[in-house]
Formats: sequence, structure tokens, C-alpha cells
Amino acid sequence: MAVTSLVMVTAPTSAETLTGSGYEAADPNQPQLRVTDLSATRGDGVFETIGVMDCHVQSLTSHLHRLAASAAILDLPGPRLDVWRAAVEHALDRADPAPELSAKLVLSRGEEGSRRCTGWVRVAPAPDMSRARADGVRVLTLDRGYRSDVAETAPWLLQGAKYTSYAVNMAALRYARRHGADDVIFISSDGAVLEGPTASVLLRIGNTLVTPGTDQSILPGTTQDRAFRYAENAGLATQARRVEAAELATAEHLWLCSSVRLCAAVRELDGRELTWDRRLTADLLSWLRTTHD
Amino acid sequence: MAVTSLVMVTAPTSAETLTGSGYEAADPNQPQLRVTDLSATRGDGVFETIGVMDCHVQSLTSHLHRLAASAAILDLPGPRLDVWRAAVEHALDRADPAPELSAKLVLSRGEEGSRRCTGWVRVAPAPDMSRARADGVRVLTLDRGYRSDVAETAPWLLQGAKYTSYAVNMAALRYARRHGADDVIFISSDGAVLEGPTASVLLRIGNTLVTPGTDQSILPGTTQDRAFRYAENAGLATQARRVEAAELATAEHLWLCSSVRLCAAVRELDGRELTWDRRLTADLLSWLRTTHD
Repeated sequence: MAVTSLVMVTAPTSAETLTGSGYEAADPNQPQLRVTDLSATRGDGVFETIGVMDCHVQSLTSHLHRLAASAAILDLPGPRLDVWRAAVEHALDRADPAPELSAKLVLSRGEEGSRRCTGWVRVAPAPDMSRARADGVRVLTLDRGYRSDVAETAPWLLQGAKYTSYAVNMAALRYARRHGADDVIFISSDGAVLEGPTASVLLRIGNTLVTPGTDQSILPGTTQDRAFRYAENAGLATQARRVEAAELATAEHLWLCSSVRLCAAVRELDGRELTWDRRLTADLLSWLRTTHD
Repeated sequence: MAVTSLVMVTAPTSAETLTGSGYEAADPNQPQLRVTDLSATRGDGVFETIGVMDCHVQSLTSHLHRLAASAAILDLPGPRLDVWRAAVEHALDRADPAPELSAKLVLSRGEEGSRRCTGWVRVAPAPDMSRARADGVRVLTLDRGYRSDVAETAPWLLQGAKYTSYAVNMAALRYARRHGADDVIFISSDGAVLEGPTASVLLRIGNTLVTPGTDQSILPGTTQDRAFRYAENAGLATQARRVEAAELATAEHLWLCSSVRLCAAVRELDGRELTWDRRLTADLLSWLRTTHD
């Protein structure tokens, strides 16, 4: 057992020959990747980050399916989902138990010229999210530069895939922090609400929970999906549709949802304070934290 | 001596303490990066690829300055250019001599939470570019999704930096190859010619060589810059400015320029054959290949 555990997936996709289990434990403190790995030189891979609550991997099936969908958008070979599932469980078995862990899965196109993908699962303690959960976050809206229809019209822009070319997302977060905010909501060049750099956007408008639809060139959110199930249990309607940027200011509540932070209320948007219901947020958080699926 | 050589840059930026030379030779066949390196998980680094012709590193100073400019756009600490220069020379000394090599420099934000950057220089035989140089390339124009002013209006989109989140560039090339082309010229959403996924665009219009200006949210091209010096020697005027997409079809010649391929004439654009002057292209190639700077 160790604080952090690492499992290399030796047969991550249909392109590699499967011998044995297709994965093996490795030392997370040792180098594992060559400098020609295309994840390192081209950001050419896909990934998932999954919350592990009380040693239960939340929505593992949804995350695996999204990994496969992302791989398809990047023309990667199909991931062996049974191998990945077993690798995640093996990595979890090898990590010290803790109330909250995170599991990161990365599937890279592999070393230049090798035609064999590289993959790994790393389980580590989750960062402390208690403050964002309890007190909410301050958010800037930033232009994503793309129209909301690019996933359809320009598939080479890879929108809708969760892939490791994430420098723009990281730069947007740094920009927000330099300007007194904690997080970002991206707006398309045609004025639609998209997503955060590492989160989905959720709005309460009347008795409906609303999220931008996946036809807006964004990722399907696994935690947002679970929040919709919470809403249905709580007697709220749910709706995935185009959301205009102007609607953000008029929503009764606004949240960012993601696998490790779960949900954080937006308490300030572009420098303007928003009202938010601590009880409803705590109730949603508790549901996301404790409902296993 | 080896076909490929690798030098890890142990003090790549002002953020690391410099002890000794700041670099050391490493085995290119062994893993050198941990899976938490942000180059591998976030595409969070900058890079340069440099042509090495007859053991001369072409335009090394320009490449080092561009590496520093890219690092600044990504809020990375300033690279120690003297260390990088010596690391390039050391890597070159350790590689088998060949008429054409390529040197790749990568500066990564480093391992998660470490606040120390990772860097390396890899020297390897250049891929055979003789066919593209002699026979030209077939090119598709593809939408880059961004307006030509985003470097100014949305700096978090990192346009104008050469950074390792390159999956979109690779996807665009795959798209082109699936559609009977070899390469791509990106067009902005407001109709301006930008650049190729790994090349600058050069047009001959009358007696002027024209390239899209760096105010169009694109990289400054080191090879394009050398092509401009060729033009000045040959009595042609040069111009860096906004180029409308419609001008591509009316140019007398169209080239893609990059450090390793040097230049390739565009012989087909969006399925339509273009005329091109083999003698002029051969003359430009010879100049780029043999003029040391």
C-alpha cells in the first residue's frame, strides 16, 4: 500500500496484443515514459479523472464510455474497457484507503513511430475541495474562441473529446486567478454557454435544472448527469439545451460540477455577487458524495 | 555516438537552481518522464523543432528566442537560453553525423506540484523529405475555428505560442490525409490565411513574397524569415500582412515552410491543381538548405 499508486496499462487498446491481464503495477516515483511519447510531445491522448468516494469509483462505466468516445474522436484505437476497468480496481487496491481519492486514466497515442498506445491509471489522494464546496467559487466568463457548432462543422478541432492538449484550459484558470477569480465558464464566439476548463455548468431556472447540451461542442458531464438524477429524485425538471450567456446572470443558482470537486456554487460571476442556496447546494453535494453508481 | 541522442536539461529555467552545466546526457531508450509530468497529462509545455544541416543547427538563436517567447505566453519561467544552447550542441556532439538531423527542444511545466520545469533536447535523423521538396504537396484549407485577432483579445487561447498541446494540429493532418491531401492551411473564422499545422505559409504575388503577419494570431516562422532573406537577395520584395483566403488561389506560387522540410510547393489546393515553378522552388530550397545562420 502507498499514498499514491500507479498501474501501467500494457494493452490499452485493440492495437496491442493482450498477454496476461494487460496491465501491471509500477513505481509512481520512477520515470515511466520516454520523451518520444506523443502524450508529452503532442498532447496526443485522452483522459478521465474520476472521484473515488469511500473506496467506491464513482460512475466508472460512464467514465470508461467517455474515454472510448474521446478516443474515437481522436482516431485512436478502441480502448479495451475490461482491461481499463480491472486496472482501475488494481490501482485502487494498491493505494492507501482514504475518504476521497482521485483516479486518473490516460491513454496516449504512444511513442513516435511505435503504433502502440501507452496507458496508465494513477490513484492519489484527492485535493481538499472543502472550501469550494462550502463557500462557492468566483467565476470569470471567458471567450473560448470557437463557435458552438464546431464539433459538427470542424471535427479536427476535437471539441467534445476529453484530450490531454489541455494547456488552454490551464491558461484560462491562471488568467482567472490573476483577475481575482477561482474558475472560468467558457462562452462560444456566438454567445452560448459552454463549460468550465475542468467542469460542467449547471443552472437552476425556476423548477428546472438546465445544462448546456452536448450539441454545443462540449463534453458530456458525468457529474452533471448524476446531478440530473438528483434533480429528478427531488422533483425538479431537467433540460439540456443551448444556454445563452445572458441567462447566467438571471439563473436562481449556478454551479460548476466535476468528478473530484463534485459541485461548487458560483457565488460571484464576472465580479458581481450571485445569490445561492446553501441548503440546496449541501443537499446536492451530499447526494453526489454518497450515492454510489 | 548513437543514431539518436538525448540530453535532459536539469536547469531549464530561472526557477531551478543551476548546478554544473544545467544539462546531462541520458539514454533515449529508457523512460525519462514520470506520468505526472504536465507535458504528458496537460500538454503544458513549449517546444521547438530545428533543422540540422551538415551538422549546423540552423537559426538556433531565432529558435531559442521563440522558445522564450512561447514560454512567456504560457506564463512559464524564463528559459536559460545559454544552457539550452549548450545542451543542443552537446546533444549534437553525441549523435551520429548525417546530412540532415532534427533537434527537438521541449520545455515542460514539470511534474505536478513540483514547481520545477522539465526540459530535454533530442537529436535524431530527419525524416526523408525529398519527395515533398521535389514534387510539392497537396493541401486542404481547414477552418481553425478562431478569429484572426484572438491572440490580442483572448490571450488564454495561447495563439502565437509553439506549445505541446498539438492534438488539433495532428487531427487536422489526419483529416487531410483521409481526404487525399498531404497537408493543411488553416483559415481563421473571419477568412484570413493563418498557418499550417507545422508550417508557415508563403505566397508569391507578382514580384513580392507575402506571408500572413504575426498580428494574425500565428507563430513567427523561422524558415519563413530565412525565405524572406532569400527573396531580398533575389531582388524580390517581401511583405507580412493579413492574407485573405481568396488570395491563395490567385497567388503565382504557394509554399509551406518549416525547419526540417524547409519548403514544399503547394501543387494542389482543395483538389485544384496549382502551377508552380520547379526552378524557383529548387533555388529557394538550395538556399534554405545550405545558407548557415
